[in-house]
Amino acid sequence: MSPQTSIATIARSARAAVAGLAQAPAGQKALAISTAAQAIRARSSALIAANADDVTAARAAGISAALIDRLALDAGRVEAIAAGLDTVAGLPDPVGEVIKCWETGNGLHFERVRVPLGVIGIIYESRPGVTADAAALCLMAGNACLLRGGSEAARSNMVLLECVGEGLRAAGLPAAAVQLVPAGDRALVGAMLAAHGLIDVIIPRGGKGLVARVQAEARVPVLAHLDGINHVYVDASAEPAMAAAIVVNSKLRRTAVCGAMETLLIDRAAAPALAQAVLAALVDAGCEVRGDVAALEPRAVPAPAGAFDTEYLDAIASVALVDGVEGAIAHIAQHGSAHTDAIVAGDAVVAERFLAAVDSAIVLWNASTQFADGGEFGFGAEIGIATGRLHARGPVALEGLTIYKTRVTGTGQVRP
Amino acid sequence: MSPQTSIATIARSARAAVAGLAQAPAGQKALAISTAAQAIRARSSALIAANADDVTAARAAGISAALIDRLALDAGRVEAIAAGLDTVAGLPDPVGEVIKCWETGNGLHFERVRVPLGVIGIIYESRPGVTADAAALCLMAGNACLLRGGSEAARSNMVLLECVGEGLRAAGLPAAAVQLVPAGDRALVGAMLAAHGLIDVIIPRGGKGLVARVQAEARVPVLAHLDGINHVYVDASAEPAMAAAIVVNSKLRRTAVCGAMETLLIDRAAAPALAQAVLAALVDAGCEVRGDVAALEPRAVPAPAGAFDTEYLDAIASVALVDGVEGAIAHIAQHGSAHTDAIVAGDAVVAERFLAAVDSAIVLWNASTQFADGGEFGFGAEIGIATGRLHARGPVALEGLTIYKTRVTGTGQVRP
Repeated sequence: MSPQTSIATIARSARAAVAGLAQAPAGQKALAISTAAQAIRARSSALIAANADDVTAARAAGISAALIDRLALDAGRVEAIAAGLDTVAGLPDPVGEVIKCWETGNGLHFERVRVPLGVIGIIYESRPGVTADAAALCLMAGNACLLRGGSEAARSNMVLLECVGEGLRAAGLPAAAVQLVPAGDRALVGAMLAAHGLIDVIIPRGGKGLVARVQAEARVPVLAHLDGINHVYVDASAEPAMAAAIVVNSKLRRTAVCGAMETLLIDRAAAPALAQAVLAALVDAGCEVRGDVAALEPRAVPAPAGAFDTEYLDAIASVALVDGVEGAIAHIAQHGSAHTDAIVAGDAVVAERFLAAVDSAIVLWNASTQFADGGEFGFGAEIGIATGRLHARGPVALEGLTIYKTRVTGTGQVRP
Repeated sequence: MSPQTSIATIARSARAAVAGLAQAPAGQKALAISTAAQAIRARSSALIAANADDVTAARAAGISAALIDRLALDAGRVEAIAAGLDTVAGLPDPVGEVIKCWETGNGLHFERVRVPLGVIGIIYESRPGVTADAAALCLMAGNACLLRGGSEAARSNMVLLECVGEGLRAAGLPAAAVQLVPAGDRALVGAMLAAHGLIDVIIPRGGKGLVARVQAEARVPVLAHLDGINHVYVDASAEPAMAAAIVVNSKLRRTAVCGAMETLLIDRAAAPALAQAVLAALVDAGCEVRGDVAALEPRAVPAPAGAFDTEYLDAIASVALVDGVEGAIAHIAQHGSAHTDAIVAGDAVVAERFLAAVDSAIVLWNASTQFADGGEFGFGAEIGIATGRLHARGPVALEGLTIYKTRVTGTGQVRP
């Protein structure tokens, strides 16, 4: 079978499953997901053993330590996967929600009702937890999913899929609702990306190389973010202790997350005292500061070319002095990636200007950029963050995995 | 300049214009649009003269009578274009609307706020009215647009663009907000479709050939519909006069619109009396009926192969008898195009089942499929109907031309 035919066959069976899923009540979907969680706990040792084989093979193949760390499961991580499913099972079902209703003068009654997106393709790398997590989120929103994980996690993913299958069976939902796309054959990924009309949306989860390939090749719509070149702008009106705390947290709480600050912008009018305090706090906390600010912070190093377009994902920050909020807005428009940008300011007019003019998925005032996360938004979970401009922007959770239809009820109306 | 470079240049200037448009208050955008309407009225004779040249050239090029009809403008059509702009200028501004707001336990305040989509590419054919109409809708929602009309309407479109430009100038909005992509060079269309990251969404307006090409080639997300294979299902519980009226109106009010019924499904339990009455009404009203229903309506002709997958856009309907609502749902799942489907039924339980299980953008109960229209939905206008599953489904108007960002306001919160 060609890769195209393989994907078409899998996607058609997923499509057939959507009809049942779309009508399934919340309790039935939640039962499938919580049963899967129980199955994961029950098979914990089998899962850890399969995962150990994956890790051994990955080490033998010379895979990097960072990837091995994402791949490896222990009892704690297995429990975290199961607990994640229980969380999703407890979330409110978005399907069937009446988003709005209205009437027109001729007595027609309109209801915009949330329905599942359909067939979702998830393309990810070595983290086996994504298999369970993505399946649960798709399922709770009434979608079928095609899961294509990394070949290095194939054995772990197989056990996790069996657990999800057990949940589907227990709830009387179709097995085709969650399917693994065989790992190893890279042509299958290409076929997924080209499956316009068969797969409704592709969500890549992984590093920049993966996301860039998906965005470059996909003929199916993609929900994703490529870069998180996030800024914190410290206005001269900022309270110094708050500014230092937010800057340090935005950069250093976790440096490898997409919501981490990469560039610090300081109001020229905040120099010297406020600027010095913020820069010193950042360097004292262990961050390398790159920028033309040696007069304010002697430990700063010069910024290399391209620094302001760099996502370090490390304890390094680019720094620039800008001319007030307008300077910050212009810098972000030129260098930002429309992900997450924050202002620290006491002046509400300045903050309002920043929040209105910075066109990023998430804009914050007096809070850390590290809140860029579906859980922190109160969504209970997230399948990823999207920086595109269609459908969903920012953290994508259950609601972002739905669309709507319009139900029109009449009493025999015909159009004149 | 290569087509790619041309489009990139135009799209970048459009992107620069979006920053201003996104912040423009409703009154400023409305002023631009109503001034454009006045300019169209003031230049009516120049527009009609330019259009006459377009028509003469199109006739000389042997273009079909149907296309000439869409191309030609007279005083009435020019006034309709201007009046359409006035309508859009009077619509509520979607930008800045707070869609929802919520707080989390740590005191962070979240607001989901509507923002413009960005740069919209409109690809259309001979109707010059689209130039004004699409520009106004994009503008009112704060978007910049690249308009690529048919070469046969080039002279008319140029005059219309001048009128829109007059409106932009009067309101102090950037001229780059609305730009014509030069007609004639087909490679420019290819470059628009490939302009991922430069154009945020493409909306094709025109015949099936155009939409199919756009959907097949686009690397930019597309909002569109290809087919409108719409069904009316007459349940045995339907009131006969209502069923006949809805079926006749759904098919024949206008046969060339995408919301017209193409296939009539009749409950087998509705035979013979109700089925006969509906079929006779349809044939009496001038519709050719194709299907295996000679026993009920002697004027019916046999259905050729593929009849149920055919969009006639003419006074022809395919007819099938089905086994109740489940038979109708199965038929629509197999042959429908997810556009608009209706049930006529007195039984509310049956109707509810149809509305829930038929997964089309628009589902109606006891009303004509010809209500599939943004104006009839109360949106005041529409830029098209979308049958895809991402972002917007059904009639797309101002709201469908926006997306959101999330504004987060804190008091110094950092993430633990």
